[in-house]
Amino acid sequence: MYYIGIDLGGTQIKGGIVDEEGKIIKKDSIPTGRTRKSEEIVNDICLLIKKLLSDENLSENDIYSVGIGSPGSLDRERGIIIANFNLGFRYVAIREAIRKVIPVPIYVENDANCAAIAESVAGVAKGLDYAVLITIGTGIGGGIIINNKLYIGANGAAAELGHMVLKMNGEACTCGRKGCWEAYSSATALIRQTKAAVVKNPSSKILELVGGDLDKIDAKTAFDAARMGDETAIEVIDEYIDILAEGLANIVNIFQPDVIAIGGGVSKEGENLLTPLREKMKGRTFFIGDLKNTQIVAAQMGNDAGIVGAALISKRI
Amino acid sequence: MYYIGIDLGGTQIKGGIVDEEGKIIKKDSIPTGRTRKSEEIVNDICLLIKKLLSDENLSENDIYSVGIGSPGSLDRERGIIIANFNLGFRYVAIREAIRKVIPVPIYVENDANCAAIAESVAGVAKGLDYAVLITIGTGIGGGIIINNKLYIGANGAAAELGHMVLKMNGEACTCGRKGCWEAYSSATALIRQTKAAVVKNPSSKILELVGGDLDKIDAKTAFDAARMGDETAIEVIDEYIDILAEGLANIVNIFQPDVIAIGGGVSKEGENLLTPLREKMKGRTFFIGDLKNTQIVAAQMGNDAGIVGAALISKRI
Repeated sequence: MYYIGIDLGGTQIKGGIVDEEGKIIKKDSIPTGRTRKSEEIVNDICLLIKKLLSDENLSENDIYSVGIGSPGSLDRERGIIIANFNLGFRYVAIREAIRKVIPVPIYVENDANCAAIAESVAGVAKGLDYAVLITIGTGIGGGIIINNKLYIGANGAAAELGHMVLKMNGEACTCGRKGCWEAYSSATALIRQTKAAVVKNPSSKILELVGGDLDKIDAKTAFDAARMGDETAIEVIDEYIDILAEGLANIVNIFQPDVIAIGGGVSKEGENLLTPLREKMKGRTFFIGDLKNTQIVAAQMGNDAGIVGAALISKRI
Repeated sequence: MYYIGIDLGGTQIKGGIVDEEGKIIKKDSIPTGRTRKSEEIVNDICLLIKKLLSDENLSENDIYSVGIGSPGSLDRERGIIIANFNLGFRYVAIREAIRKVIPVPIYVENDANCAAIAESVAGVAKGLDYAVLITIGTGIGGGIIINNKLYIGANGAAAELGHMVLKMNGEACTCGRKGCWEAYSSATALIRQTKAAVVKNPSSKILELVGGDLDKIDAKTAFDAARMGDETAIEVIDEYIDILAEGLANIVNIFQPDVIAIGGGVSKEGENLLTPLREKMKGRTFFIGDLKNTQIVAAQMGNDAGIVGAALISKRI
């Protein structure tokens, strides 16, 4: 028996068949075509599920459940995507649609929460009761595991960790507040910070790396230039890590989890990111004597996190 | 059968006999004498317990358990106060001492957590699965109830909500960080803010209220002067509530609890505090469509919170 997970992204819809342990036995993807009608996109999800099954010679009787990971607001009880702003979805009854194709339990869950579930079932948080996953991407996504279960709060909308204000009255955030952690520590913010530094210091190697085209700067550019010893890039990265550390120290003081896992593209920098990050967090977390401290690590599930987490939602709710 | 709760404060040691529902049937207190040796203070706690029992004609057979609420770091498993900085306690084996007087289960818990337990068992969070208590006093204390249980994290030191940085590189905090919520929203901070405003605006009614003596300014003074229409005080209170709202909005975005209860002296201002606070929080909490929102209310258990929470620790762990 297996689980099917669907990761409903803005560019790709990824799907996979996953075993009990979180191992993907088959995966596939299709372009989202985000400007299309929701009916067409949902229909493609159904086709993807059918294809996955037929490719593996499996039937609905081999599947325990299907899970859909989507950004935005969800109605878990009714299996509805209330709002997915990337795709223009409003009140899409995805459970009802998928059940016509495969009559098993269908779960919907927030994509950042799915990533946390994946780490909890099969990644760096496996076997740990308390874990927080931070996904650094366009925004900062959060997923919280408490007592080995996903924490979603009283109304299902908890864990918006990126929308914790760190610098009151600071940078404008997409959520309407000013100074959110996301406005400083997302990949989007790092790109903005890198561009601003280059404008101030046009002799920086950063500009060379992108062939003089500011629009080619991505979240990796400053890390690459810093590795080449570029002073401007070193400063950008130092300040970026400083604010990231401040947010993480808040999370430690609030949750004192066993582990905080950092996912998303920036986490691929590995120890280039993590070593200075841990160093900067020292002295910022609340004094707890000789008690054990939260481990700060890179998430492990990478691009498969969405599929695995969506597939195994039922194991963490 | 009853429970005994001890609230180990810096000035008073309060104790009470509490019933199943969180009702105090007898309470008493003794001065802490904080400069004394820990043995003497612990001995006084034992005497207080004996007195409470004899005053009510009860014996150890009428008592389920004894709980001690203390600030600082605790070893719950071994029943030890690791560090209570107010009293200079370091590794005080309080369970062992009290068990000699009354051989029942003895619990130790952080005082802010006890206050949250009290609200959860008998106060504004009764019957609710998700609650956060914020105690505004010398610092900002936090207590978190999740699934009707106290949340203490992986190492027991979670819920240091006051040590969430809101204004990075801002006011120095006692914890060593800069810009903690506590450094702006504690009663101590409000007094500092009030004094600074008076120094800038000596014609303010605030100074009149304290007979020209800055040292007489307390956390109530600016609220009193604001009620009299004093412009300086109105500004102090407006800014104080603004930052308090920012921190609470963070807590909502992170936890989405059923309720946030605000305790401590400042909460006695009631709707003078809460109405503008709720107003300022609007638009700062993350968009959650038509889902139910966190209620912001005053804590209900007042000065008895410490006794009731300590007595009923076993109901929320």
